[in-house]
Amino acid sequence: MNPIEGHLDSRSPLHDILAPTGIAVVGASADPTKRGYKAMVGLIKDGYRGSIYPVNPRADMILGVKAWPSVTAIPGNPELALICTPAATVPGLIAECGRRGIKGAVILASGFAEVGGEGAALEREMMAKAEAHGVRIIGPNTSGIFNLHHKINLLALDNVKPGDVGIISQSGNMLLSLALEAQHNGHVGFSTYVGPGNQSDIGFNDYLRYLGEDVHTRVATLYVEGFRDGRKFLDVAREVTAMKPVVVYKSGSTEAGQKAASSHTGALAGSYAMTVDLLRQAGVSVVQYSDEILPVAEGLGLLQKARGKRVAVISDGGGQATIASDRLAEAGLELAELSDTTRQQLREVLLPQASTVNPVDVAGSTDAEPSLLATCMEIVAADDNVDSVFLVGMFGGYSIRFAESLLGDEMRGAEAMVDLSRATTKPLVIYSLYTPIKPPALRRLHEAGLPVYASIEQSVRVLAALGERGQYLAQLPRQSREAAVTPRPELAAVFERARGEERDLFEYEAKQLLRDHGVEVPAERIARSEEELAAIAARFREEVGDAPLVMKVVSKDILHKSDAGGVKLNLTGETALRQARAEILASCRAHAPAAEIEGVLVTPMASKGVEVIVGVIRDPIFGPVLMFGLGGIFVEILEDVAFRSIPLSRHDAESMVEQIKAKKVLEGARGEPAVDKESLVDLLLKVSSIVDAYPALSELDLNPVIAYADGYAVVDARVIVDRQASDEESRR
Amino acid sequence: MNPIEGHLDSRSPLHDILAPTGIAVVGASADPTKRGYKAMVGLIKDGYRGSIYPVNPRADMILGVKAWPSVTAIPGNPELALICTPAATVPGLIAECGRRGIKGAVILASGFAEVGGEGAALEREMMAKAEAHGVRIIGPNTSGIFNLHHKINLLALDNVKPGDVGIISQSGNMLLSLALEAQHNGHVGFSTYVGPGNQSDIGFNDYLRYLGEDVHTRVATLYVEGFRDGRKFLDVAREVTAMKPVVVYKSGSTEAGQKAASSHTGALAGSYAMTVDLLRQAGVSVVQYSDEILPVAEGLGLLQKARGKRVAVISDGGGQATIASDRLAEAGLELAELSDTTRQQLREVLLPQASTVNPVDVAGSTDAEPSLLATCMEIVAADDNVDSVFLVGMFGGYSIRFAESLLGDEMRGAEAMVDLSRATTKPLVIYSLYTPIKPPALRRLHEAGLPVYASIEQSVRVLAALGERGQYLAQLPRQSREAAVTPRPELAAVFERARGEERDLFEYEAKQLLRDHGVEVPAERIARSEEELAAIAARFREEVGDAPLVMKVVSKDILHKSDAGGVKLNLTGETALRQARAEILASCRAHAPAAEIEGVLVTPMASKGVEVIVGVIRDPIFGPVLMFGLGGIFVEILEDVAFRSIPLSRHDAESMVEQIKAKKVLEGARGEPAVDKESLVDLLLKVSSIVDAYPALSELDLNPVIAYADGYAVVDARVIVDRQASDEESRR
Repeated sequence: MNPIEGHLDSRSPLHDILAPTGIAVVGASADPTKRGYKAMVGLIKDGYRGSIYPVNPRADMILGVKAWPSVTAIPGNPELALICTPAATVPGLIAECGRRGIKGAVILASGFAEVGGEGAALEREMMAKAEAHGVRIIGPNTSGIFNLHHKINLLALDNVKPGDVGIISQSGNMLLSLALEAQHNGHVGFSTYVGPGNQSDIGFNDYLRYLGEDVHTRVATLYVEGFRDGRKFLDVAREVTAMKPVVVYKSGSTEAGQKAASSHTGALAGSYAMTVDLLRQAGVSVVQYSDEILPVAEGLGLLQKARGKRVAVISDGGGQATIASDRLAEAGLELAELSDTTRQQLREVLLPQASTVNPVDVAGSTDAEPSLLATCMEIVAADDNVDSVFLVGMFGGYSIRFAESLLGDEMRGAEAMVDLSRATTKPLVIYSLYTPIKPPALRRLHEAGLPVYASIEQSVRVLAALGERGQYLAQLPRQSREAAVTPRPELAAVFERARGEERDLFEYEAKQLLRDHGVEVPAERIARSEEELAAIAARFREEVGDAPLVMKVVSKDILHKSDAGGVKLNLTGETALRQARAEILASCRAHAPAAEIEGVLVTPMASKGVEVIVGVIRDPIFGPVLMFGLGGIFVEILEDVAFRSIPLSRHDAESMVEQIKAKKVLEGARGEPAVDKESLVDLLLKVSSIVDAYPALSELDLNPVIAYADGYAVVDARVIVDRQASDEESRR
Repeated sequence: MNPIEGHLDSRSPLHDILAPTGIAVVGASADPTKRGYKAMVGLIKDGYRGSIYPVNPRADMILGVKAWPSVTAIPGNPELALICTPAATVPGLIAECGRRGIKGAVILASGFAEVGGEGAALEREMMAKAEAHGVRIIGPNTSGIFNLHHKINLLALDNVKPGDVGIISQSGNMLLSLALEAQHNGHVGFSTYVGPGNQSDIGFNDYLRYLGEDVHTRVATLYVEGFRDGRKFLDVAREVTAMKPVVVYKSGSTEAGQKAASSHTGALAGSYAMTVDLLRQAGVSVVQYSDEILPVAEGLGLLQKARGKRVAVISDGGGQATIASDRLAEAGLELAELSDTTRQQLREVLLPQASTVNPVDVAGSTDAEPSLLATCMEIVAADDNVDSVFLVGMFGGYSIRFAESLLGDEMRGAEAMVDLSRATTKPLVIYSLYTPIKPPALRRLHEAGLPVYASIEQSVRVLAALGERGQYLAQLPRQSREAAVTPRPELAAVFERARGEERDLFEYEAKQLLRDHGVEVPAERIARSEEELAAIAARFREEVGDAPLVMKVVSKDILHKSDAGGVKLNLTGETALRQARAEILASCRAHAPAAEIEGVLVTPMASKGVEVIVGVIRDPIFGPVLMFGLGGIFVEILEDVAFRSIPLSRHDAESMVEQIKAKKVLEGARGEPAVDKESLVDLLLKVSSIVDAYPALSELDLNPVIAYADGYAVVDARVIVDRQASDEESRR
């Protein structure tokens, strides 16, 4: 088992309410079907050492503890109140809590913002009281909290073992499901659980920071329906994931799921694909299926991280080696190419019919000596070409399947695997088909903190998570996020002018903004008169010779230039330019008689290449986000795009280009040359640093950018101006 | 539990060797680590009622059974021999078996074709003996067989329960894994197992037919690395799946997996995507992950089939309802829209805060009365808008989580679910987070043959399989495969001529073939001289007026017409045609001076539409296969194509068009009108019926076909001629 990777070192402001020294249970009850009973039982049975104050006007004692008629009647100073009463009572109770000096309240009731209308109003009323009285709110519409290391078990869950997996879940059933799975198949216990519910006050980011700082938490695990302040969450996640793994299951991968989530916690889902990209960028381990949450969390908590994608498979059955190979490849992992030395060493211990090409198939060599599997693992773990080791097959069951007399050797094998796991820096991931029946050798591995998984599929998801985390941690020290450029006064003035005229930037202004900050935008010149056009024609002749030019109308009143006849392609020579200008002006005037036309823009026509798109949006949940993809159907039909939160690091930009499924097109499919990825990475970083410098820039759309074997050309650029942003800000 | 759907009614020729009345164990041994020991133990312990003949020259008795020095020394007439000795001994032993009248032999040894070279030669030698002596071969390189209803357990597996799941697996570990999983989490036992190994004689199709005919087998489950005669397999599968479910896990979904499989069983993998499409066409339930094989097989065996995709979810936790909604949508299933009556009935039994919109969230209504969940299931099952019912949540655990006193009501709920499962024709799929701890209510469901799954993901895969199977069975009686057209002598002669000239069909010949059989190919005329061109120009002017024409060179020596300057587009008027012809001839003569040029082809230029591709290949494993996809990057980069075995049914053709991921493009993305799918379906059926009529047609490629809002146009057609096919065949 590797040590806890680290902790944030400040003390969370939530510490008082998540590890309180006294708790008021409002709505405490002696009726075993009530939550106010369960919570009392949980605290008493688990031996909570702080003070417990049941509040119930109709009882003197509850479960042997003196009860109080109201919150204000409590004599002590509990830090936390658990409120089990209906929604309508909550605002009044929060005020009482505040007056009693209670710092935080857990609100179980539903019927708040998630039901809309009156519920939303009640939630606002509650929050007004909470702010007025300085009470922090957990929930409402939460399943509650526990903190097992402080013996606070407000859910009264049975059989949950204290351990180091922390959980924040917007689903109580999900917690219960993880607890039952851990009880039966798990390797570790739990530290703290919080149900954030509607997050009307405290949100995921606050809870995550708490788990980041909590010395009892090795891995933070989150079930999320929706973030309130996604940008803040990413910032906290970036800090926490540098210290310990954070596993997130985000619901709402489909429209049907988003609708269901919205009726559950009132969460705004946002784009699932974008959320996943941004979480991964912040170092979060995102899992796609609910049944891999616990295996991945445990794997990340217990196992070494892989430095790369190269997996060595040791198997005792060809069929399962084949399945493992398929799953690894599908997960983006590779079969390590074993060195000659490694293969020689394997040949020395295995029978001649064994395959020493990865996946290694021992082909009967271990039937009479299962501990040889540990030897093979040791051999491949020593190979520099190997990043992680994956044992696949019958280990643990040899003494059952073949002969009882093999048990001793099998236990020696288990011991050797435990020793190897302590000696190597590479993860050992073990799948055994005997996992369901827990034979002695597997129990030994389990005790030593080496998880044994029940399916190849599950194991491969763990391997993938270990690889991603290892690679994230490896690049972290070498990366910094791109600093904003220094905004230029003349460009800030362009934004001011546009805002004054209540319009977005003209294409030439957007291009000037980019060009001035080092983005490669082909030269283009605006002709406001026939004389200017002549001069421009002459200059282009000097610069690009007879290369064809393009002409476009410039008018704030004409958005769809092509539809207005405002674009002419493939123009050569001054006469052609002159004629094109006349036609454009005539056509645009006919199309939009009232339009104010500033002139025409002339630029060399871009040569053929691969069309890509770079976009920026300001997302209501996550703030400024950069988007990259291939043009046309790739974006519009296949939605094959990558997202990153701005600012980006170089690694972020590189990984965007690698991520898209149509990457093959960039790499030179259909006989075309590969494009210059490095220059695209530079473009993404430049855009990131420009966006951060001009807060008045609300959206940006470079569509298309033509990527070449050498460099790129931004052919069209649109910048949407934030007309609300203060002048102050835009000069910042 | 629904009854076994049916059986093929003939008796399999494999019956004698898979259910033999006597077995010779060649290489029987008293050494507990040997397979020859295990097999003896398996037969004796399980109480095999036939005769057992251990063969071992160095023992008189083995495990209390008289041993014989050689196969020929055996006094009785066993039908099957299990051969446990090394590869080199096998050919000689097969000859002995034949002389002794033994009908079949199970060959455990590896070291045959799967290792190539000498191993392949040894396999050929063995097969020569087998054919000469009339001995059928199971394996070699097999893990063996069992037939539990006949107490034949040659693998000596412990704790396998007889039941009705049959298994054919090219991986012994996979069998073992399924057996252990069934022992622990399963609901049913096993009937017959066969490891086909290298399939040097008996192949998957033979074994599948056996399971199809076996009255003890309700579901056939296959782990396949590669088929030997895929076409035959599809034929058998089509027959068997009409009677009972067939579940296939096909390995080799990636190149890495295909490589591993090839070193394991020497299997040729072929295209995974194609294999999956063809299996599904034949009614096979294909599973993608190894850990869903047993759940899906059990679900198909035990549950009703769904008539459609509309699932009603009943849940007691909003988070898990959300996860279920996501998984269902990802699997192509839909949330049923509940009728007003259904919602009203739900409102009558649930609390006001419950959500009666699907996914139904009982929101606490069942906390004190879990049997209400069964009531809700009953209500939604009665809704005509619902095809299947999915229970998600805590059922089975209410008496643990809330109060022990709820146990009685929970058991009543279980009973009601069992009753409902017997009364309804819709499947009830149950997920409980308490599955791992098997509480009484879940045990009751289990005993009654209602599977309870351990994860939402697993449950949804079962729902998807039930839906696919239900829909397959529903369309089956209404569908027949398209009959071949009657081949025309003049077209057969075209093939003969091409073969005589050692070339493929000219484009105009290929188009004539299609046109003559009713495919829509725009009129085109070949001009062999300037005079012919003038006449052609006149005829086109009459037919299409001034619409632009296209001209292409016709020469068997010029394959890449564009490269040779042999294509001219957008031609209007006789002068333009004349000039184009001159230019094409000049350019082609310059490009390929030796080329024999027959003339030029003139055809109207196709107007804009959606480019699709229709192709036919003769696959070495599966025979004639039709391919359909969108043109350009969709095929070349995204490999987004659908395959069907020829001949197709109308359902097959329709499902091809619906299957491709880029279907959106056909349905009118980016402001374009939707294309005429019906006419594309007709095209696919016509191509299928043409291919079947002309055996000399080896490959066909219609690329592109332009699909319009009304009809389509085949713009280019290539037909590759099978130069090996006999004249006989091509006249058939």
